[in-house]
Amino acid sequence: MASRDLMRSTTRNFEKYYNPELHGEIRLDTNTNVLGSNPAAAAALKNLELDLNGYPNTYSDGLRDALAELYDLERDNFIVGSGSDELLDVSFKTFTEWGDSCVSPVPSYSLYNYFIELNGGKSINVDLDEDFQLDVDAMLAPKAKVMIMPSPNNPTGNTFRSKDIEEILERTEGIVIVDEAYGEYAKESMISRVNEFDNLIVLRTFSKAYAMAAMRVGYAVAGKSVADMMTCVKIPYSLNAISELTAIAAVKDQDFIKRSVSMVNEQRPYLDAGLRKLGFETYHSDSNFIMARSPVDHAVLVSKLKEKGVMIRDFGSKRRTENCVRTTIGTRELNDILLEEIAEVIDEC
Amino acid sequence: MASRDLMRSTTRNFEKYYNPELHGEIRLDTNTNVLGSNPAAAAALKNLELDLNGYPNTYSDGLRDALAELYDLERDNFIVGSGSDELLDVSFKTFTEWGDSCVSPVPSYSLYNYFIELNGGKSINVDLDEDFQLDVDAMLAPKAKVMIMPSPNNPTGNTFRSKDIEEILERTEGIVIVDEAYGEYAKESMISRVNEFDNLIVLRTFSKAYAMAAMRVGYAVAGKSVADMMTCVKIPYSLNAISELTAIAAVKDQDFIKRSVSMVNEQRPYLDAGLRKLGFETYHSDSNFIMARSPVDHAVLVSKLKEKGVMIRDFGSKRRTENCVRTTIGTRELNDILLEEIAEVIDEC
Repeated sequence: MASRDLMRSTTRNFEKYYNPELHGEIRLDTNTNVLGSNPAAAAALKNLELDLNGYPNTYSDGLRDALAELYDLERDNFIVGSGSDELLDVSFKTFTEWGDSCVSPVPSYSLYNYFIELNGGKSINVDLDEDFQLDVDAMLAPKAKVMIMPSPNNPTGNTFRSKDIEEILERTEGIVIVDEAYGEYAKESMISRVNEFDNLIVLRTFSKAYAMAAMRVGYAVAGKSVADMMTCVKIPYSLNAISELTAIAAVKDQDFIKRSVSMVNEQRPYLDAGLRKLGFETYHSDSNFIMARSPVDHAVLVSKLKEKGVMIRDFGSKRRTENCVRTTIGTRELNDILLEEIAEVIDEC
Repeated sequence: MASRDLMRSTTRNFEKYYNPELHGEIRLDTNTNVLGSNPAAAAALKNLELDLNGYPNTYSDGLRDALAELYDLERDNFIVGSGSDELLDVSFKTFTEWGDSCVSPVPSYSLYNYFIELNGGKSINVDLDEDFQLDVDAMLAPKAKVMIMPSPNNPTGNTFRSKDIEEILERTEGIVIVDEAYGEYAKESMISRVNEFDNLIVLRTFSKAYAMAAMRVGYAVAGKSVADMMTCVKIPYSLNAISELTAIAAVKDQDFIKRSVSMVNEQRPYLDAGLRKLGFETYHSDSNFIMARSPVDHAVLVSKLKEKGVMIRDFGSKRRTENCVRTTIGTRELNDILLEEIAEVIDEC
């Protein structure tokens, strides 16, 4: 048996990722689009004419062109890959030297530390303030090579103030990654600013509002010099041809995105009020999920809900989100089921 | 404009990968399967019933189970990913510390140095002997943390002797990666030996014999302790759900693989003889391609052939493969077109 001493020193304590056993539960734990498959992508799949034996285009030029048109930018502002996770990996691989410090806020996306350490970096976590907003001076203090922050933030749900992100971009000498995985739900985006800040990388995904998590497509947007560096580092044709084709179709159907966002905007106050009525302390959300502090024990709530066929995510054992859970905002029907099952669990406690 | 000084020091001279302009040429430059799309995968695509909005299984258990059955191993001997390129990346990320030496033979696959340096390693290239076989002592001399070798070798086409690979596995304290990208065409494989050598990783791809390059699927096979380390390091659900489903279908249709290999075995002597008749010096191949030294200038040959609508790959400017080109072994019809066009180019020289 080989020993873990063989592993890169920064990875030796890594464990497997969230991989729950499934028995047909309603999934409100992954913040995917509850309206179902992206219809344009599904239609593109039905009409597929494609030789499977040939390699995809090396840098997914077709999808990069579609994105350039959507945002009124150029092909060479974009890097696409197999989920925005690949672009996270590429970002740290491109811009960190062994042992470089990288900063992310707390609470935020749990995989950032994994991506930083995986690539030999040192992860420094800086607390958000009491309103879960960026503490700009504290973020800048470690003089990080790379800073990363999700906006809207996950799991708290709020966006960060643009002026704070701008100040960080201006005052750092490093790279700043703004992870807009939930960007379609937010009122503001940094994408239109990539030619203004040459140290800015914005990440987006097709896994949330685009309703295509199964296809694993993500992209990075950056000024052309940073984008070129990432392109030279990323693995050639890492995005498969079918994911590219379906993503192109999805980009061209912005109506579905608007419909999805409207549904969330409509349901957010309904679910929020329902949770508060049940005794939860809820947090402001600019996204398709809500974080809420449970009136009963978080672990009991999440596991009993799973038994009743509804999955939400438990953040209750972590600092700053003590006893908190996170749920995707469902359709009216799903929200009613969720609230009803939660009420039952609370009654049983 | 951002400067390349921002980049990881080992990546600053990286350039974009092979990305030729295409105008409907016959592709004999990428060693994909000339019989066309994998039929079982194409059928699976036609009958697809899949929610696109949900994430794939975290570690592609369905495909790992199908592979375990094929090779009479266990699910936990396998790691699957987005092309064997992802598994190359994961291997170096998991087992190299910054600056660690990694050894690969010359000539072999050009991307190995990229994957090593990308992950902060130092690539050491060790010459193959005159017969393009491994020089075992020379490979072991640098005491590398990771050694990697393709067998069958690319671009030379021959397999390495099993006894040499075994000797390397026994004498090194590091990890040994045997890249069997063309393994389906070879008579021997190291896959059945993964439980015997706890430092062995075997890589395979669906891009060659499986005729699914468009889908980007690859896998690594290793003893369970090494496989577990790689699983903890790899990006969760990096393989999209449709690539996984089509790959499962393809694994279960071994008749297509047998037919593809038979075609290559039948055509190899025909193409080899045809090339020799035209003045090429050909090299022994255990794969679906042939390397050959051109009787005319390699660059002229490759560019004139492209003008005539046939693409082969140029290795003529590299040491040890001076004036050599590499061509995929086609069907009888494709081989006749290739030989005819080559004859015309030679006449014009």
